[in-house]
Amino acid sequence: MGKPEHFPSETAKPAISKAELVRRLSSVLPEASLLHEEEDLRPFECDGLTAYRKIPLVVALPENERQVQAVLEVCHRGRVPVVFRGAGTGLSGGALPYEHGVLLGLSKLKNILDIDPLARIARVQPGVRNAAISEAASVHGLYYAPDPSSQIACSIGGNVAENSGGVHCLKYGLTVHNIMKVRFITIDGELLEIGGEGFDAPGYDLLALVTGSEGLLGVVTEITVKLLPSPVKAQVVLAAFDDIGKAADAVANIIGAGIVPAGLEMMDKKATGAVEQFIGAGYPLDAEATLLCESDGTEEEVADEISRMTDVLNTAGATEVRISRNEAERLKLWAGRKSAFPAVGRIQPDYFCLDGTIPRKQLSNVLKRIEEMETTFNLQCANVFHAGDGNLHPLVMFDASDDDQLHRAEKYGAAILELCVEVGGTITGEHGVGIEKINQMCVQFQTRELNTFHAIKFVFDEHGLLNPGKAVPTLQRCAEFGAMHVHVGEEKFPDLPRF
Amino acid sequence: MGKPEHFPSETAKPAISKAELVRRLSSVLPEASLLHEEEDLRPFECDGLTAYRKIPLVVALPENERQVQAVLEVCHRGRVPVVFRGAGTGLSGGALPYEHGVLLGLSKLKNILDIDPLARIARVQPGVRNAAISEAASVHGLYYAPDPSSQIACSIGGNVAENSGGVHCLKYGLTVHNIMKVRFITIDGELLEIGGEGFDAPGYDLLALVTGSEGLLGVVTEITVKLLPSPVKAQVVLAAFDDIGKAADAVANIIGAGIVPAGLEMMDKKATGAVEQFIGAGYPLDAEATLLCESDGTEEEVADEISRMTDVLNTAGATEVRISRNEAERLKLWAGRKSAFPAVGRIQPDYFCLDGTIPRKQLSNVLKRIEEMETTFNLQCANVFHAGDGNLHPLVMFDASDDDQLHRAEKYGAAILELCVEVGGTITGEHGVGIEKINQMCVQFQTRELNTFHAIKFVFDEHGLLNPGKAVPTLQRCAEFGAMHVHVGEEKFPDLPRF
Repeated sequence: MGKPEHFPSETAKPAISKAELVRRLSSVLPEASLLHEEEDLRPFECDGLTAYRKIPLVVALPENERQVQAVLEVCHRGRVPVVFRGAGTGLSGGALPYEHGVLLGLSKLKNILDIDPLARIARVQPGVRNAAISEAASVHGLYYAPDPSSQIACSIGGNVAENSGGVHCLKYGLTVHNIMKVRFITIDGELLEIGGEGFDAPGYDLLALVTGSEGLLGVVTEITVKLLPSPVKAQVVLAAFDDIGKAADAVANIIGAGIVPAGLEMMDKKATGAVEQFIGAGYPLDAEATLLCESDGTEEEVADEISRMTDVLNTAGATEVRISRNEAERLKLWAGRKSAFPAVGRIQPDYFCLDGTIPRKQLSNVLKRIEEMETTFNLQCANVFHAGDGNLHPLVMFDASDDDQLHRAEKYGAAILELCVEVGGTITGEHGVGIEKINQMCVQFQTRELNTFHAIKFVFDEHGLLNPGKAVPTLQRCAEFGAMHVHVGEEKFPDLPRF
Repeated sequence: MGKPEHFPSETAKPAISKAELVRRLSSVLPEASLLHEEEDLRPFECDGLTAYRKIPLVVALPENERQVQAVLEVCHRGRVPVVFRGAGTGLSGGALPYEHGVLLGLSKLKNILDIDPLARIARVQPGVRNAAISEAASVHGLYYAPDPSSQIACSIGGNVAENSGGVHCLKYGLTVHNIMKVRFITIDGELLEIGGEGFDAPGYDLLALVTGSEGLLGVVTEITVKLLPSPVKAQVVLAAFDDIGKAADAVANIIGAGIVPAGLEMMDKKATGAVEQFIGAGYPLDAEATLLCESDGTEEEVADEISRMTDVLNTAGATEVRISRNEAERLKLWAGRKSAFPAVGRIQPDYFCLDGTIPRKQLSNVLKRIEEMETTFNLQCANVFHAGDGNLHPLVMFDASDDDQLHRAEKYGAAILELCVEVGGTITGEHGVGIEKINQMCVQFQTRELNTFHAIKFVFDEHGLLNPGKAVPTLQRCAEFGAMHVHVGEEKFPDLPRF
């Protein structure tokens, strides 16, 4: 393969001084768009993964696409690394600043440029909040489907960078399936128009390539998203199970029956217990596992689907099946699920929120093995997850002030991700790799796949200036951590890097 | 951007003689898998685009993945160009042999390796026929959704190479949306495992990148496809219109009403007339445009959707609305649509089948302008197309024995593709670029996008050995043809390359 001679390292250093960088950026940005004093930089030191913090050299907050291009041109010429930041809600540290680089925030590009209700598309800038698109489209009876839990705060530009999912992605797809076109700026300030308003485009699929590339290839300055007609009706079924394996099987059976629910979520007893103490969603406290299965569509479709799901849930041995009777009941049931993370955070000093994805058929097996590990590591783990698409969010609970607990929690987390890879899954579902799971990428991929990633990175960013040290580990890092690729039935790696 | 110094040219020549090539390939292939005599090579001289024919140096027909790797290793070392061939049904000349290269056929890799009804996936080799997957899955009540018109003959490997669509792709997506994982061999014989069985994968989206790459990046030797539950019921509505613009508006209104039909096809009067002469599907002969709108799902869903579509069609001014009363009637209506191309071929000496995609809202406008061009070029054009996803298949009819007609037909075709780009669409929907539309790529893309394509090509194939001269034009070719990029509201290109 046409690989570059040597890949960029993780530690890039600018060829110019901070003073010179500030001088050059001043010539392309308004004064209020350039921060370089310590106290102004501090608010940008981390994203949603607050365990990691760094102060960048400067923060640039361009007001338009031309300024984004100009900042990147300056950085490219001065060999200054750049990290992009949307709303800063990311959970894997993708927007963690680089200490020798510029943090380029997109928050000032926040206009909805156009909504075309006939073509059912909206043209938006990257700083627009996810939920704001649906709010603006609602006058036309339309909405934007992908709905990360952070949707009231997170921005569409960040969603593109992370290829975000959400409760409704089982039925409506991930971000990549719901966007048509982007304006994309490369590190040398070049504008690429990628994708189109037609159903398919010739040439290689650059739209999919840059979606989910975590700020390593460039940045989007405009996104054309698809809008869907708001469903006439939505209804949710709650089902309680006295055994977590039965609940997992019920999930498989719903999918196996050809039903594609609008949402299919699962919580275990520890999670529902925490939620009930926190907001009282009316969840059954004695159930080992609780499912929420949503249907949306026309009145007839919803009635038909709810009836078929109820049959499957009863057959699977649900101890209780409860259907929302009105919108207030439906929203109350979802409010519990959506507050599960803070609810767990309230009863335990600390927790790791993991984000593995496994083939759906492995749900029952993996859940049992995660439960068994509670004894191994002498820690509790609550489970809250998108069951329908096999995206787990185990919450490993611990007290970080106890070094031994922290150490065990890290090992527990690593073991869960190892398990996900072992059963044919992946180390991330929707939170991205960022800095958090960079070592686990050594476990997920073999050298030749990592080499291909680096070669593609090289096409867009030969000097390795964009988000250095994130998302795709150098081979050197993988060698240092001594990780070896695990394949089912092949070798096991002896020494997994600490989570 | 990290672009290579110089891109591969269109004319690659092997570093070894044909005799030496045959000698080396003999050592890695069984005798029956290596053809090198003129009379054995002749059957491989073209694919479905029979206007172009070439004889390769040799044809290799490996029996397993290891042999595919070995052939590619030999070609890589000897700098011998390679063209891949599936079932040879492609319509854009993607499998047209290269005269200085090897034609590598995948027809002997034709096993369905595994069907997992619970996970709803099948693992298949590239030579498996598209329809054979659904046939094998039917015992589990499952099927594979993408259905190119050639599905009884075309192979899944070719579908991946072309990112094929079909009548049902409006509802169920293109090939890229219906595959999860591939085993992929690069030009140097390296095996990459791309994608996974989970919902999403970390790292750049290589699966989308290689899908639709038309044999320019490598070849798949195994594909894991998604299977869907076969719908309980399917029903079709035929609607006749006295004006093609009204029919186009009806299509927009169906989509605008939030309906996603399983199929939404349109034929104009010339097409239905030809079909009726050919097989007598019962189409209304006096209608200017005929729509076929299919619904599939449960009994309730289909009844509800058919009733809503019927309302929209009546409101849009349909002169006749007819609902299939049984499976025989449904299949008869579809038989007409599926035989439209041969039906037109029967009444005219020759035709060009075009394949442009436009934003749905432009349907009415574009159809009127294509009709107006009949006068300009003094030729007839029948229209048969996937209206729901804006994928047009205008059939420009002519007599190739008349040089002037041929010339006018080429200009007519080029003008239609120019129109597609002008209204924000693309020069191909599902047939690929291949050799057929290579010049139009100069119109579709700007230099910087083409440069990005070439740089990605370089990552996988630095010597330009894979399918040279296809799919992505060199900048030199674009310069020679003098094409300039057209953007709506920007410059028009003065001299479009001949179609």
